[in-house]
Amino acid sequence: MKKKISLNYGCALKKVVGKEGISKKELQKFSSTFKKGLFSLSQKRTKKIIGFADLPYEKKLCEKIIKKAQQLRGHYDCMVVLGIGGSALGTSAGLEAIKGSFFNHKPGGEREGWLKVIVADNISPDFISEIFDLIPFERTCFSVITKSGTTSETISTFAHALNLAKRRFGGDWKRRFVFITDPEKGFLRELARKEKVESFEIPPNVGGRYSVLTPVGLFPLACAGVNIRKLLEGAASFDRVCFEKNLFKNPAGIFASIHYLLYKKGKRINVFMPYVEKLKTLSDWFAQLWAESLGKQKNTYGKDIFIGPTPVKAKGVTDQHSQLQLYTEGPFDKVITFITCQKFENDIKIPEIGKFEFSKKSFFKLLKAEEIGTMFSLLKAGRPFLEISLPRVDEFYIGQIIFMLEVATALWGEFANLNAFNQPGVEFGKIIAKKILVNDRKVLGNLKKLKLKEYSV
Amino acid sequence: MKKKISLNYGCALKKVVGKEGISKKELQKFSSTFKKGLFSLSQKRTKKIIGFADLPYEKKLCEKIIKKAQQLRGHYDCMVVLGIGGSALGTSAGLEAIKGSFFNHKPGGEREGWLKVIVADNISPDFISEIFDLIPFERTCFSVITKSGTTSETISTFAHALNLAKRRFGGDWKRRFVFITDPEKGFLRELARKEKVESFEIPPNVGGRYSVLTPVGLFPLACAGVNIRKLLEGAASFDRVCFEKNLFKNPAGIFASIHYLLYKKGKRINVFMPYVEKLKTLSDWFAQLWAESLGKQKNTYGKDIFIGPTPVKAKGVTDQHSQLQLYTEGPFDKVITFITCQKFENDIKIPEIGKFEFSKKSFFKLLKAEEIGTMFSLLKAGRPFLEISLPRVDEFYIGQIIFMLEVATALWGEFANLNAFNQPGVEFGKIIAKKILVNDRKVLGNLKKLKLKEYSV
Repeated sequence: MKKKISLNYGCALKKVVGKEGISKKELQKFSSTFKKGLFSLSQKRTKKIIGFADLPYEKKLCEKIIKKAQQLRGHYDCMVVLGIGGSALGTSAGLEAIKGSFFNHKPGGEREGWLKVIVADNISPDFISEIFDLIPFERTCFSVITKSGTTSETISTFAHALNLAKRRFGGDWKRRFVFITDPEKGFLRELARKEKVESFEIPPNVGGRYSVLTPVGLFPLACAGVNIRKLLEGAASFDRVCFEKNLFKNPAGIFASIHYLLYKKGKRINVFMPYVEKLKTLSDWFAQLWAESLGKQKNTYGKDIFIGPTPVKAKGVTDQHSQLQLYTEGPFDKVITFITCQKFENDIKIPEIGKFEFSKKSFFKLLKAEEIGTMFSLLKAGRPFLEISLPRVDEFYIGQIIFMLEVATALWGEFANLNAFNQPGVEFGKIIAKKILVNDRKVLGNLKKLKLKEYSV
Repeated sequence: MKKKISLNYGCALKKVVGKEGISKKELQKFSSTFKKGLFSLSQKRTKKIIGFADLPYEKKLCEKIIKKAQQLRGHYDCMVVLGIGGSALGTSAGLEAIKGSFFNHKPGGEREGWLKVIVADNISPDFISEIFDLIPFERTCFSVITKSGTTSETISTFAHALNLAKRRFGGDWKRRFVFITDPEKGFLRELARKEKVESFEIPPNVGGRYSVLTPVGLFPLACAGVNIRKLLEGAASFDRVCFEKNLFKNPAGIFASIHYLLYKKGKRINVFMPYVEKLKTLSDWFAQLWAESLGKQKNTYGKDIFIGPTPVKAKGVTDQHSQLQLYTEGPFDKVITFITCQKFENDIKIPEIGKFEFSKKSFFKLLKAEEIGTMFSLLKAGRPFLEISLPRVDEFYIGQIIFMLEVATALWGEFANLNAFNQPGVEFGKIIAKKILVNDRKVLGNLKKLKLKEYSV
């Protein structure tokens, strides 16, 4: 049998961690709520209301993406992803997890001809200039990714890139762009049709933050040489596991149930702490998934609930020197999830230069010792935690953890009777921004309310 | 008069944001607590118990650092910082703020010969290998930074670097290393003496997380071409401002007081959200300062208080597409601080490619419109926030914000009667890690408690 990632939840139980944990009984009792939640989620899946769980089976699409990536590999050295939020975070996470923290620093040969992938996920003016100064424009192609096809940040940076490309290459600009957007609607889809630009589709029933296994994440990752077949295989291998009806055999179910039960007891802060440097960006991806899906004013009955756990990104061992003090001694308002890894591709022996316990041990051994030291600290301080353990960091297991966390998020939403697939709270800000851009008098008149001089120091 | 950064706190007041804010009266009443806190802090400063506030005046040291940096500039292309926590975060923050997000990607000419600075702040085995594969060893020098001179992560990576350097350069290795550590004690200081390695001192009365304006931060930053004179000038210019006795004229005081009062009302999550891409690493620096200083089990009378706000790192505009949904609709448990910037060095006009409000506007204008849109969303949702506004991002203003946030952190600690300068909660984990490395039977025997098979799924 193929290995799989596993979730260890002993240290979230009262029996082990003490009164701040939950009892096995509570968890057993919760089993019926879990079953209802899972059933409701399965129904949504069957009815195609949600599509994320079926993405791992899109094998034909996967091959089409790989073919396109192979083709670009010969022609370009660099890809700039123009996208933000769900159109960017999965790519950043997958790229660092699989290709390491310095992939974009490596020369082409060490990348085996695969493309550097630069994710332009902000509109800070000097950030945009920096990127366009940095890239070898002649050898750069662009992925323009927006589900609606109209996202301000993405379309504005695209406008800039398009303008430069047209000036430089005339009608030939088209070969340098790939659009990833809605199959029917929106500005970008229309442009793709009109100008015959290569494009991929984002299924309408897959929201941005659940879209890493659509072309949104798969295409840029394939261009960087990530084995997306294996990524999908990993995810598929966790489908049955995460839709298992026995709570105690379902890691997504246990993850969601424990977090939900502890949230109800006041633990509203969920720390996500990989003990692997290159998994730090996975925390950004998870933070969006968790926060935007579960932070909701209303439940599905329209009642005000103002609910939502706050995800916090940390990384081991680094944040032992930054956040751990707070986690062990601060308020009892947190649940910590460690992401650990059982095997690293490269390890190094630490030479002896003095009387240190780590002399002649390896970095892996030192890392593991500190990881366990941190866990014991939390245990001693009575702070509940979970551990997601990866046999190693590769596409297969990243596929599993992505799938598991997506299902877990959706389940938490079911438990709380909220819609984990919308984001009504961000619309108002977009409207205001547009009004400001067209110099709407009413909004501009209200501006001084924000910047009251008498409260400025 | 020279411009300065300013703190706008109107939107944290009941009058503007509604019932979740604090009243002007509460703040006025708090003025006496503030005065006591400031007095206590000033006393500690006068008695040299704490040293961070006097760092901006170390002009001779600053010139010595610049001289050394100038000397390395001619000889090396790259510096690796071996340090973690407070020995790393200030450098990372300052480097990205001043030199942008892609400085290390630039060729030497564009860096005007200044050194790339790679911060090796983790011991993930493949992260370490990646760094040593990447650097041009011949043209690389190392800053080894640890206050105690014995930090496991730093000394172990140093052992590896030293081993490689000795093999390659024999006795000549010394020229390639600079040690930054305690003036008297510790392994690294002893080695510096014995081997006559160039070194700088970390004042014993400056803790790691307050040490960015010591050689810890100044030296690597100077090697990257950051104007550290201006950084110190900025900090010095905020000394009087942040030790001002009138609360309503003291931005550090207002920042600390409002956060403390809102913490007491249940707002335990403090989001730090720069609307400037290159300030995102400043959030990591602040997160350590805030969490490790204020997360404490006991107050100074030895009473259990289990206190501490949880810092959360976000960035605008990006996290409008990730965290904003939670901030506007989730629980009322947050205070958000925006860091905004009034002027960017480079701006770009957005070409017209369709009917969009941002067409022919600039990226700066779009950024500002979204920033204000986000603020209005929060205001509408009744969520209190603050704004720290920078005239622009340069060394002078970064010096001001560093100084202000350090004083604010120390003041919050005074208000809560806790020691903001120690970190007792991290010692236990270190002891356990050491015991594991020497195969301590008792600890190893307890290991199965952490990894209970029956709770693994």
